[in-house]
Amino acid sequence: MSVNHTKIKSIIKKIFIKRGLKTNHAIICANAIINAELVGAPSHGLSRLKMYCERISKKVINPRPKITVKNISKSISIIDADNSIGFVAADEAIKKTIQNAKKTGIGLVAVKNSGHYGLSGYYVEQAVKKNLITFAFTNAPPAIAPFGGKKSVFGTNPICFGTQTSSKVPFILDTSMSMINRGKIRIAEKLGKKIPYGVALNKFGKPTTNAKEALAGVQLPIAGFRGSGLAWMVDILTGVFVGSNHGGKVKDPFDDFSGPQNIGHLFLAFKDNLFVKDYKKEIKENIKRIKKIPNLKGQTIFYPGEQKFLRTKTNSKKSIKIPKNIKKDLNILLVN
Amino acid sequence: MSVNHTKIKSIIKKIFIKRGLKTNHAIICANAIINAELVGAPSHGLSRLKMYCERISKKVINPRPKITVKNISKSISIIDADNSIGFVAADEAIKKTIQNAKKTGIGLVAVKNSGHYGLSGYYVEQAVKKNLITFAFTNAPPAIAPFGGKKSVFGTNPICFGTQTSSKVPFILDTSMSMINRGKIRIAEKLGKKIPYGVALNKFGKPTTNAKEALAGVQLPIAGFRGSGLAWMVDILTGVFVGSNHGGKVKDPFDDFSGPQNIGHLFLAFKDNLFVKDYKKEIKENIKRIKKIPNLKGQTIFYPGEQKFLRTKTNSKKSIKIPKNIKKDLNILLVN
Repeated sequence: MSVNHTKIKSIIKKIFIKRGLKTNHAIICANAIINAELVGAPSHGLSRLKMYCERISKKVINPRPKITVKNISKSISIIDADNSIGFVAADEAIKKTIQNAKKTGIGLVAVKNSGHYGLSGYYVEQAVKKNLITFAFTNAPPAIAPFGGKKSVFGTNPICFGTQTSSKVPFILDTSMSMINRGKIRIAEKLGKKIPYGVALNKFGKPTTNAKEALAGVQLPIAGFRGSGLAWMVDILTGVFVGSNHGGKVKDPFDDFSGPQNIGHLFLAFKDNLFVKDYKKEIKENIKRIKKIPNLKGQTIFYPGEQKFLRTKTNSKKSIKIPKNIKKDLNILLVN
Repeated sequence: MSVNHTKIKSIIKKIFIKRGLKTNHAIICANAIINAELVGAPSHGLSRLKMYCERISKKVINPRPKITVKNISKSISIIDADNSIGFVAADEAIKKTIQNAKKTGIGLVAVKNSGHYGLSGYYVEQAVKKNLITFAFTNAPPAIAPFGGKKSVFGTNPICFGTQTSSKVPFILDTSMSMINRGKIRIAEKLGKKIPYGVALNKFGKPTTNAKEALAGVQLPIAGFRGSGLAWMVDILTGVFVGSNHGGKVKDPFDDFSGPQNIGHLFLAFKDNLFVKDYKKEIKENIKRIKKIPNLKGQTIFYPGEQKFLRTKTNSKKSIKIPKNIKKDLNILLVN
């Protein structure tokens, strides 16, 4: 069934308020979840709502966190999220990053004791709108084995990077270090669909196209040793450096209710005109030149974020298709 | 033939002084080139010496640059390398990065009008020794096509990331965004060897294992759209942002003597104890936990930089093997 997204947003808001979140926090969560649906990443949208609610009721997400911000300098801050839902911590963090970067040219903001925050691109985009070149890193529960190993330790550990392009379509690269997003495997499992060959191993170390087996096994990193190294880098940046869980200790939000996730995030932003007079002109020229390159047969060169922007524009005009099982979840969550 | 590396270093130094470099600059170059040989990356070592000398004699590398440093803030600086040889500019830049980061917790240093600087890891290691978490990015002449395109535009555009590990073996990830380093293809071409299947296309867009064809064609990025996006990110960071050449405009140092390369670099470092009390303890625990994971049959889990460190240690005790053609180059360069 299809539902208007303003209506769904108000339903999500009500569900979170019912679970003790303050109104402004519930709105932040609802906006982030609907954004995931609109950009075409339902694995980070409504399909996680039931899980968030379960974690709140089992007291491993704190619905009324006392989030504290400590400024180390005018550029550098650390946020203790007090086990809030990740959206709320990340919203506070990206605002602080923007503030620091606007003030000093560079902003670095760490977040500890947080949870899953949805799509990195959603936050990076907010800073990019302020003419900041922006990075976001986050860790996640174990999904990828280190190169040479046969047990998952790294999360999908995305690297997200963004910049303005001088047009209204920002450059937003948001790439996990796994061959496939874990959320996509979860969706495939839910819908009983197969996953592509070569992206995951079962628990015996053999390739599998069965989503359930893949979730119990190991996801493969992109590009072997290189991708494994990049995932390890993100584990260090958001775990060791920030002071959150690392080295395989982040709890799976769907399966492990033994305590908070203690996920870490790291946001970094620079004013894009620090070193050149006319950044807008240069970035426009860069993109124009690269998009002009002769295409491989049947392909088009898109910059990261371009297709997502077009998809979001189209989806914003339509209502959101909601699978039956999720509609059922919504109804239950609204009442109970 | 094999030559003691202290002896070779002094030969390189003499060759550069002969071409007008100041003694301290010639020493910086010699150290960086010998380091590449010792870490086992000859593609970034002596095999490039003749090229550097040619570029100096054709006046597209400036042997006596007036390198200027402009401080934008206590954390942020930009260096105009005045078309120096890349080693000299990068040496100055990493020192400035260390200084800024030690002073304020974070250092960001951009370099424009530079040239090929060898291995990123060589510079990152210097900052890591000062307990800084460090990134280095550099662009390079076109080698990789953007995803969907059939002409090279991005360089191999490495991402380099390093941190201390509490042991004497640092974590140094130094990964290009191509399936194979361009230098390795050059070596294969020189030695008449084949390159692996699946890393490059010829100029007609067909897969090739012929090194010469690959150099005339296109290298493939790691992980398709993801690697293409990361290479594009590095092009923006070191080209557009810094104010150097970008979007396919960096000249090939071996083939194009029509002007300076105008390569850009970007260095970024944070004090590793900004957010946690005992970084050493945490990083030690992280690495211990991950290296303990059960191995795939016949494999061992190494962290990035670990094998390189062991290789360097072994190589430092031996003399350097020099291929005949390079020995010949050295003799000619010493005399002329």
